[in-house]
Amino acid sequence: MQLTRAADYAVRVMIQLASPTGKGRISLPALARAADAPESFLSKVLQELTHAGLISSRRGQSGGFRITARGRAASMRDVIEAIDGSICLNVCLASGRSCARKPRCLAHPVWIKAQQAMLEVLSGASVSALAGQAQAQRLTRQVEAMRLLHLPSRTF
Amino acid sequence: MQLTRAADYAVRVMIQLASPTGKGRISLPALARAADAPESFLSKVLQELTHAGLISSRRGQSGGFRITARGRAASMRDVIEAIDGSICLNVCLASGRSCARKPRCLAHPVWIKAQQAMLEVLSGASVSALAGQAQAQRLTRQVEAMRLLHLPSRTF
Repeated sequence: MQLTRAADYAVRVMIQLASPTGKGRISLPALARAADAPESFLSKVLQELTHAGLISSRRGQSGGFRITARGRAASMRDVIEAIDGSICLNVCLASGRSCARKPRCLAHPVWIKAQQAMLEVLSGASVSALAGQAQAQRLTRQVEAMRLLHLPSRTF
Repeated sequence: MQLTRAADYAVRVMIQLASPTGKGRISLPALARAADAPESFLSKVLQELTHAGLISSRRGQSGGFRITARGRAASMRDVIEAIDGSICLNVCLASGRSCARKPRCLAHPVWIKAQQAMLEVLSGASVSALAGQAQAQRLTRQVEAMRLLHLPSRTF
């Protein structure tokens, strides 16, 4: 019951691409550095995100990856599901699956509730909002660094 | 990100063993029927539950499986973790694992929150309480069946 490495990288990359500092298209090597991901593996993840319409890609020297409007509106749940498919805590919760035990299974309502609680958090975390937080973090660090540079030198 | 089949069966079996109708020890074939699980596979699950101290087993003609006091106090989370190990939504949440990205990773707090939301539900669902609900369901069905038997026959 664990997120795949591919979905983890996909979330990292989407936050990076949604960042206001991400001007123009970003290359695969730059994204791989930002996501701490191996290029070859990330390349497949990016293909899947492109296929899901969350990012767009262009080949060539000025090419690279860019987030789409759909990607900007995506939540962490959307990104995970674009890679791993529908999040499904237990096999009995899969859409289109029927289970003869369902009417008398006391665990079933608990699986539903646990999944809903988790999905509520993942659906509420938008890629753009997280990117905004990342930007705010960077600015805070820059301000802090400048403040330190302007401090009077200490006398030892 | 899905529960293993073994953990699913373990939860079913624990609810069955915690049921007030489960007098004495219950045999493997009876448990397999109740859990709709293949005997050979369930046998391994029962071994792990025994190893975790949630049930006890005895060989021989009057043998079988019985829930322990620890098993009665267990939650669905405890049962799942006895089989699958610690529930860990993302690899970065595993205890003892460090991640260099953690201080600046905006997704990390979301993984924590999503995992906590899910675990809260699974920790709050006790095996004994679910077994009590199952018993109440059975009684309701019995009362309903008796009520139907005593209805005056309809005239067509």
